[in-house]
Amino acid sequence: MTVLLGFAFTLLTLGSCWGHQPDRLDQEPELAFQPSKYGSLWPLPQKVQISEVSFKLSSSSFRITDAKESGAGPSCSLLQQAYRRYFEYMFGDVKTQKLNKGLRTGPAELLELQVWITSPDSECDGYPTVSSDESYELSVDQPVSVLKAPKVWGALHGLETFSQLVYEDEYGAKSINATSVSDFPRFAHRGILLDSSRHFLPIKVILSNLETMAMHKFNVFHWHIVDDPSFPYLSRTFPDLSRKGAYHPYTHVYTPTDVKMVIEFARLRGIRVVSEFDTPGHTQSWGKGQPDLLTPCYAGSKPSGTFGPVNPILNSTYTFMRQFFKEVSTVFPDAYVHLGGDEVDFTCWKSNPDIQKFMEQQGFGQDYRKLESFYIQKLLDIVTATNKGYIIWQEVFDNGVKLKPDTLIHVWKGNQEKYQSEMANITSAGYQTLLSSPWYLNRISYGQDWPGYYKADPQDFKGTEKQKNLVIGGEACLWGEYVDATNLTPRLWPRASAVAERLWSAKEVTDITDAYSRLSVHRCRLVQRGVPAQPLSPSFCPHEYKGV
Amino acid sequence: MTVLLGFAFTLLTLGSCWGHQPDRLDQEPELAFQPSKYGSLWPLPQKVQISEVSFKLSSSSFRITDAKESGAGPSCSLLQQAYRRYFEYMFGDVKTQKLNKGLRTGPAELLELQVWITSPDSECDGYPTVSSDESYELSVDQPVSVLKAPKVWGALHGLETFSQLVYEDEYGAKSINATSVSDFPRFAHRGILLDSSRHFLPIKVILSNLETMAMHKFNVFHWHIVDDPSFPYLSRTFPDLSRKGAYHPYTHVYTPTDVKMVIEFARLRGIRVVSEFDTPGHTQSWGKGQPDLLTPCYAGSKPSGTFGPVNPILNSTYTFMRQFFKEVSTVFPDAYVHLGGDEVDFTCWKSNPDIQKFMEQQGFGQDYRKLESFYIQKLLDIVTATNKGYIIWQEVFDNGVKLKPDTLIHVWKGNQEKYQSEMANITSAGYQTLLSSPWYLNRISYGQDWPGYYKADPQDFKGTEKQKNLVIGGEACLWGEYVDATNLTPRLWPRASAVAERLWSAKEVTDITDAYSRLSVHRCRLVQRGVPAQPLSPSFCPHEYKGV
Repeated sequence: MTVLLGFAFTLLTLGSCWGHQPDRLDQEPELAFQPSKYGSLWPLPQKVQISEVSFKLSSSSFRITDAKESGAGPSCSLLQQAYRRYFEYMFGDVKTQKLNKGLRTGPAELLELQVWITSPDSECDGYPTVSSDESYELSVDQPVSVLKAPKVWGALHGLETFSQLVYEDEYGAKSINATSVSDFPRFAHRGILLDSSRHFLPIKVILSNLETMAMHKFNVFHWHIVDDPSFPYLSRTFPDLSRKGAYHPYTHVYTPTDVKMVIEFARLRGIRVVSEFDTPGHTQSWGKGQPDLLTPCYAGSKPSGTFGPVNPILNSTYTFMRQFFKEVSTVFPDAYVHLGGDEVDFTCWKSNPDIQKFMEQQGFGQDYRKLESFYIQKLLDIVTATNKGYIIWQEVFDNGVKLKPDTLIHVWKGNQEKYQSEMANITSAGYQTLLSSPWYLNRISYGQDWPGYYKADPQDFKGTEKQKNLVIGGEACLWGEYVDATNLTPRLWPRASAVAERLWSAKEVTDITDAYSRLSVHRCRLVQRGVPAQPLSPSFCPHEYKGV
Repeated sequence: MTVLLGFAFTLLTLGSCWGHQPDRLDQEPELAFQPSKYGSLWPLPQKVQISEVSFKLSSSSFRITDAKESGAGPSCSLLQQAYRRYFEYMFGDVKTQKLNKGLRTGPAELLELQVWITSPDSECDGYPTVSSDESYELSVDQPVSVLKAPKVWGALHGLETFSQLVYEDEYGAKSINATSVSDFPRFAHRGILLDSSRHFLPIKVILSNLETMAMHKFNVFHWHIVDDPSFPYLSRTFPDLSRKGAYHPYTHVYTPTDVKMVIEFARLRGIRVVSEFDTPGHTQSWGKGQPDLLTPCYAGSKPSGTFGPVNPILNSTYTFMRQFFKEVSTVFPDAYVHLGGDEVDFTCWKSNPDIQKFMEQQGFGQDYRKLESFYIQKLLDIVTATNKGYIIWQEVFDNGVKLKPDTLIHVWKGNQEKYQSEMANITSAGYQTLLSSPWYLNRISYGQDWPGYYKADPQDFKGTEKQKNLVIGGEACLWGEYVDATNLTPRLWPRASAVAERLWSAKEVTDITDAYSRLSVHRCRLVQRGVPAQPLSPSFCPHEYKGV
């Protein structure tokens, strides 16, 4: 039984070579399904060698265990929970397993996967960070396979890889081939942005998305938690912010308990939660619960009754921000907070006579970017005092704000030419950067759009090796204007899967035909795991999605 | 308590006036939410007058009953089931209702909706047809409201309208305003096309879509059941067609029982099931189970091993078609069958020496459209002999095939200019027509695309009154290349809702702002009824979708 045969029987998708169709008004280059020699691995590990020797796995005898020498034992609940999770992915619901105890095992049966944390500090109880060691080595062999990783984070990834190597042969028997894998991520920061302001996302949606992220070795959940339309974050210090700024103060908020649950659920899957509290723009909802925070706009000589960005000229603004970000720094354990800073509209500031006076006093002339920088500078100092690093959208850099050397600059604007030159500028100034421009998944279009996401490469710009090394990763963004719990999951997956491979696998992994084959099978695996990931092309899965 | 207040408390979407956003690379005209004087009615009835007098409804005392004079009594299970269904939509799960028997009713309580079928033949046990009377009159008043309709079909629509008039006041009390409605459809044929060939659609998805269609007064389910990629229709006469042509002969087929269930579920909701068996193109999957049906293609002087459209020169082809469509005519009770006829590729026919010889004998020269017409002509005769009418895609008309005068021609190609001139040509030749070109909902794009669907009007072309009257309706099409059970429902709704109103409501109902308001509330109602209809804009619903 070879791997190829195994996958051919297990799966499943067909090339879309069906001539014209009443719905195809234009033709796309067509991808044909040919089983990959890498089976359904996604994202592709850095090094993998799959032999033709196969073993069977039985749910009654197969076990995932801690290696004797492991730095993490039964007390590491992060790993123990992961063992259960991956066992279920491989064999289905544990409670309904047949018990075959006492039966002899066959000659080619894999009985055990030993997990061996090689470092004395497994980081089992810690939080993942941007410098976490996520590497692992996996040797699938009989009778015992071994998964070695310096830290639990690599072990989690190795478990996912192991589970992806398991397939059903033509008789439905669980099988795996002798394989050796040596793996680590190309980029340290591999994120998904979700937006819970334009539409409130029930906790259940966020958690199930974290689950799916872990299946892709994504390690950052960028939580764009508040914005103009609503403020669902329940602040202990300023409860009026959500009481008045959320869509509803009870049904459409994230309580401290909710936030804790999200963070812990993410941690158990090796995922950081980076919160974004975007200012001074994108703050309409903040103004409802915090009087005087926003700038009153003027119509002629009188206030118009509407409000603009955060008011940068009042001391009370900074007092508020100091208290607010102090809370944020304790609620969110991650070393970084995303401060936004994008798209500040100057119209309202320009209309306000107090702001005009302030501009004069400061000698800013008519350059409102200087006022914006003035605000941001003070905000950065406030956040620095909480011992957090910060991420900011590219405008803050573009406007020349003085930044700490370890600032992370998030590129989101422009077409390929523009974002590549932005990446070059940022890194040539010595800053670290993150790319999102090519991965705005909220922008949908007809047909297979994943190849475009797959081809974009964050290090593809004119620059030195040193500059390239300042690119620490990227994020797929699913902004929420047209997305809520009804359509989030199928819209995100498997489109974000393409980004996952780009950010994890080696730079040279660019064969789109091979990717198509692996991704087709991977998407059926997602469906089988209960994730309503949408199809790539005319095709079928052995187990179609049922949960409608 | 006025209607407007009622809706303002109940609902709840917000205008998307939130300044710039990192995901908005271009600006769209923005629609602001202002409560409509028509509440959340969708599609808007032909005549409706809502007063400011409101009544309460209590789940313990409110009843839907048969009027004494009604032509349909307790034995009409179509209506009895509809009463239960609409009671549940209005009050939630019947089983969990509080019982308040014996409590006095308030002075302004609505106790009863009497349903009165005014015709002696209610058509309760029949199937809806293109000439069914779907009209109804609804008078909401105290203590008894009356829904009058000549046939059950109108009664079903009236129940939907009644349920849409019920709202919650600010204390959560179910309320309805005194209202009078007089309603009938603008077009007789209001359809949705689903494609179960490119992806298999589990029966559950099809049924729940029929349920949602009924909420929109759609009355035709166009079931594009087979096509090139797969043949999931299990034919009793030719079981090899699905045994060899389906994605899987057991898990990915529609059995006769499945098909019956779909037809009955649809009938109970006033929906016709029009099956499409598209030939001579789009038939790759047919060839697997029916040898010699398809044309062998040639590479030079030898068969290449691939196959083209149905082979039109063999007698066996017509023997097969005669038997096959005889079965289809008994399985599907509708008076029409859709015969396809679109996008026939002549390359394979041209390559085949036997076909070349036949062309010569028939004096067709090099005009393969004549060969196509030859085939279609014979097919139409075969189907006519089964006493069915037929619908065909526009190419059959374009190619000059001789058609029966009652043929329905389905327009799907081209931009506005082209489809309008096609509609003019078809109707000027005296044929009835259906429009789909502007409603290919599989073609997705970023942002609010429903206004485009809403604005398209099937009678908007140059022609006489007589020509306009030959337009019997239209269909929204959701082709299946990129759609399966994972994403079908949120992709279809509420985008298809726009088409529903265009096809039902009066021609003059074109106010996009009013439509936006009603549709926003209607989409929240869909969510509350368990339909994952996607959002229109940044907004929230009092009850967000939970079923992820």
